Amino acid sequence: MAATRKTAKKTGTKKKARSREDATSMAARQRDISVSEFFTKNRHLLGFDNPQKALLTTIKEAVDNSLDACEEAGILPELMIEIMEMGPERYRVAIQDNGPGIVKAQVPKIFGKLLYGSKFHRLKQQRGQQGIGISAAGMYGMLTTGKPVRIFSRTGKRKQAHQFEVAVDTKKNAPVVSKDDVVEWPVDHGTRVEIELEATYKKGRRSVDDYIEQTALANPHATIFYYPPKGEAVQYPRVSPELPKEALEIKPHPYGVELGILMRMMKETQGKHLRSALQQDFSRVSGAVADRIIEEAKLSPKARPKSLNANQLEALFKAIPKVKVLAPPTACLSPIGEELLARGLDTRIPSDFFTAVTRPPAVYRGNPFQIEVGLVYGGEQPADELVTLYRFANRVPLQYQQSACAISKSVLGTDWKKYGLQQSRGALPTAPMSVVVHIASVWVPFTSESKEAVASYPEIIKEIRLALQEAGRRLATFVRKRRREADELKKRAYIERYIPHIGDALGDILGFSERKKANTVSNLKTILERSRKMG
Amino acid sequence: MAATRKTAKKTGTKKKARSREDATSMAARQRDISVSEFFTKNRHLLGFDNPQKALLTTIKEAVDNSLDACEEAGILPELMIEIMEMGPERYRVAIQDNGPGIVKAQVPKIFGKLLYGSKFHRLKQQRGQQGIGISAAGMYGMLTTGKPVRIFSRTGKRKQAHQFEVAVDTKKNAPVVSKDDVVEWPVDHGTRVEIELEATYKKGRRSVDDYIEQTALANPHATIFYYPPKGEAVQYPRVSPELPKEALEIKPHPYGVELGILMRMMKETQGKHLRSALQQDFSRVSGAVADRIIEEAKLSPKARPKSLNANQLEALFKAIPKVKVLAPPTACLSPIGEELLARGLDTRIPSDFFTAVTRPPAVYRGNPFQIEVGLVYGGEQPADELVTLYRFANRVPLQYQQSACAISKSVLGTDWKKYGLQQSRGALPTAPMSVVVHIASVWVPFTSESKEAVASYPEIIKEIRLALQEAGRRLATFVRKRRREADELKKRAYIERYIPHIGDALGDILGFSERKKANTVSNLKTILERSRKMG
Repeated sequence: MAATRKTAKKTGTKKKARSREDATSMAARQRDISVSEFFTKNRHLLGFDNPQKALLTTIKEAVDNSLDACEEAGILPELMIEIMEMGPERYRVAIQDNGPGIVKAQVPKIFGKLLYGSKFHRLKQQRGQQGIGISAAGMYGMLTTGKPVRIFSRTGKRKQAHQFEVAVDTKKNAPVVSKDDVVEWPVDHGTRVEIELEATYKKGRRSVDDYIEQTALANPHATIFYYPPKGEAVQYPRVSPELPKEALEIKPHPYGVELGILMRMMKETQGKHLRSALQQDFSRVSGAVADRIIEEAKLSPKARPKSLNANQLEALFKAIPKVKVLAPPTACLSPIGEELLARGLDTRIPSDFFTAVTRPPAVYRGNPFQIEVGLVYGGEQPADELVTLYRFANRVPLQYQQSACAISKSVLGTDWKKYGLQQSRGALPTAPMSVVVHIASVWVPFTSESKEAVASYPEIIKEIRLALQEAGRRLATFVRKRRREADELKKRAYIERYIPHIGDALGDILGFSERKKANTVSNLKTILERSRKMG
Repeated sequence: MAATRKTAKKTGTKKKARSREDATSMAARQRDISVSEFFTKNRHLLGFDNPQKALLTTIKEAVDNSLDACEEAGILPELMIEIMEMGPERYRVAIQDNGPGIVKAQVPKIFGKLLYGSKFHRLKQQRGQQGIGISAAGMYGMLTTGKPVRIFSRTGKRKQAHQFEVAVDTKKNAPVVSKDDVVEWPVDHGTRVEIELEATYKKGRRSVDDYIEQTALANPHATIFYYPPKGEAVQYPRVSPELPKEALEIKPHPYGVELGILMRMMKETQGKHLRSALQQDFSRVSGAVADRIIEEAKLSPKARPKSLNANQLEALFKAIPKVKVLAPPTACLSPIGEELLARGLDTRIPSDFFTAVTRPPAVYRGNPFQIEVGLVYGGEQPADELVTLYRFANRVPLQYQQSACAISKSVLGTDWKKYGLQQSRGALPTAPMSVVVHIASVWVPFTSESKEAVASYPEIIKEIRLALQEAGRRLATFVRKRRREADELKKRAYIERYIPHIGDALGDILGFSERKKANTVSNLKTILERSRKMG
């Protein structure tokens, strides 16, 4: 540690003359931080930590919004995604849809203000949920190229089309509109978003190409035209002529509500009496259920919700889990479905075996969710590499932060040896296999605003495991056979390895002739083979 | 897939009567989302995803603030951490320090408003940096117990002590003060924060106990009294009588600034002329450097920064990387130091070998940072398990999201086989070893607001690797010796395994007597041993 000590002197803890602070001088520096400033500095939280990812995130946010809007308006989505190279490390992306368009007055805030949107306050399966994504993408574009977002939008044949240029004032988190014109736009209804940003375009795993292909897989009802910066345009035609089952909005479930939320809900309820308030504001709370809760809490059904005091509210809160309430309605979920999932995989990855499992809906923190798993084994897939894992949340492919994701953790946490696969401690199984996991929920708990990984709620991990285990069992018999063959070869190798030594050894000990040695050795092999097969 | 089809019908894509939306009905639902609402719903982003973690996060945020305040005021920290059990799944934590206290007027906003603080806008090595943590902890307490945060604070002997009760109005993200009194408080100066919350207390890995012990390790200048909910109080006495080298605030470095930031800086600069603006607002920009940048950008030194247009600003931006600018000053960093780090480890984990490496400072996105690594090998540590990894950022132990962390990725990404350790693909090495990695920076890029994992900036990963490799080389010779012994045993085992078969085989082939067989077998062993050692 001699070297250490020397360095320690340099980097060590020598005292210095200091201009130290006190409470007053420190108070003088206290300031508001705008959410835009926060995310500008923490842009990696939104998925803008490097130029390649920035390109993907920008496109992803726009595509999420387009698909959500189309489905909400009952329109079969037709998307156009364009990436134009504008210079070194500089691209302009354009995402255009045939959706319902955006009302003129809303455009500036939707694209020029973080934490603004229609999805955050609803319990409904949607791709977007935060009200951050697209405005953050615009903010990143402005940050790296100084160019505002350009938006074209038209809400109907008989309406005018509008063109906007919008940027975010990061200090105020407010939109700055630099252009707002009526324009000729040869589209009946829809929205087009153009963002110029510093980025790099790469092919291969986690590329935009890859993301768009997976998006097509998870959205068989959408048609996607994709124009990459170089090379041929790609078209993913619609494979299912029907919109997915519409996901309906639901009210919060009593089991998922915290005391603080309950307090606020009772303060803001429209219900005159406690009984009606509970009935109106929660899902699955009938008059009878409301009565039981109120009785359990030793309160009066006629009590005015707004006038309940802290202790009464806590009593109400503690009463809820004691009363049996039906699980939340699951009409709010719209899974891909085993058949479409399996069919999609089968066509995408040629294999020797495939299967798909859709679990029944479950609940975490009062939020319904549903897990789907698909397995594809064999075919051209490499046998000596870790399995390929495809993660989807509300039909959106997740491409980064795999190791942080509850989905990956569940795959790691599953004992694949039980199903005849190799797996080293703390790693994915090694097999010629691809695994697809999809979580559909009214509120997917992501580990960060960039929505790249699912947070590890125990209920979610459990459901994924159950789905994986079911798929694993189906896989097991098939795999075991292959596995046995591999073992055979390994054992044989050991023997081959020692036979020569033995030959020489016999030579030395018994002074065999070369011929006799060769003879004995070959006999040895035969017998060892036999004994091996028996033991 | 027969079973599949059946299920598919249930979960499938049947069409339904729908009440579809259009742009107008959708516009009606667009709303602001307050940052408090956002983090209430996304509380796992802040580290409140389960009751055990909630307890840790709450204490962590308060401790970070206490240590930062003490160091900034030049006070050797003396912390008291108390956890009181208030009922099933309900605890009250109290964190008290001997810091400078908080000015009365600031208390409500600091504890009752998210995104408010003194640290976000400064480039300085601090534990806190976001202005979210402590108010979020209070918000979680309110959410789960309905109780506001209680604060005691006193800024000096001659000042009165104040007691506050503060909560967050999540709709407005604004403080609600329910108590504000002058109180008798037998403390000269300091702050005490009390938060009641739903939580669980557990011992073992990633426990609060564990966190506090690691905090003591990384802050040898602090004294910590810890009162767990059950069992003995623990004291971690100060082991170094000196405050760490003070980390100084620096200005942004030109190489780290983006176009958008540069634009804003030029708009807000105090500098009258471009030349003085660059000199004043950036670190390492002398008059000469400023001149070179301005010349490269074909602008005039006398130009008024506020009146530069987009093209001129872009020219300025593009000029910066073409001019040589010194790396940012590193007085803003305060690493633990090899000696203290090694000493701390040695006393904490009895071992056969240990070493510590402190890298010279480096830069990512213009932010200086510095990596330290410590290795402890052997001793009582289990040989057949993955190594234990301890992660620190600005002296704060990181306990969750290990797999998402640039630190872990660097450890995984290092080829430990080179240093004689076992390592299976995609996993930590398997060895009787503990690894400590510390990143000190003016701005640690965390993967989420909960500050549990470091984002994967290539410069950071590279520095960690270099430090690990240096430590690994020192470790290698020592480990190789052990490794060789293990291999010996394994080879021997193979032979033992086949000798019996050979014995029988010889019996069959050459019709040996038992005695002769035994003889030959033992000779065989000797010779095989020899041949093994040779090859």
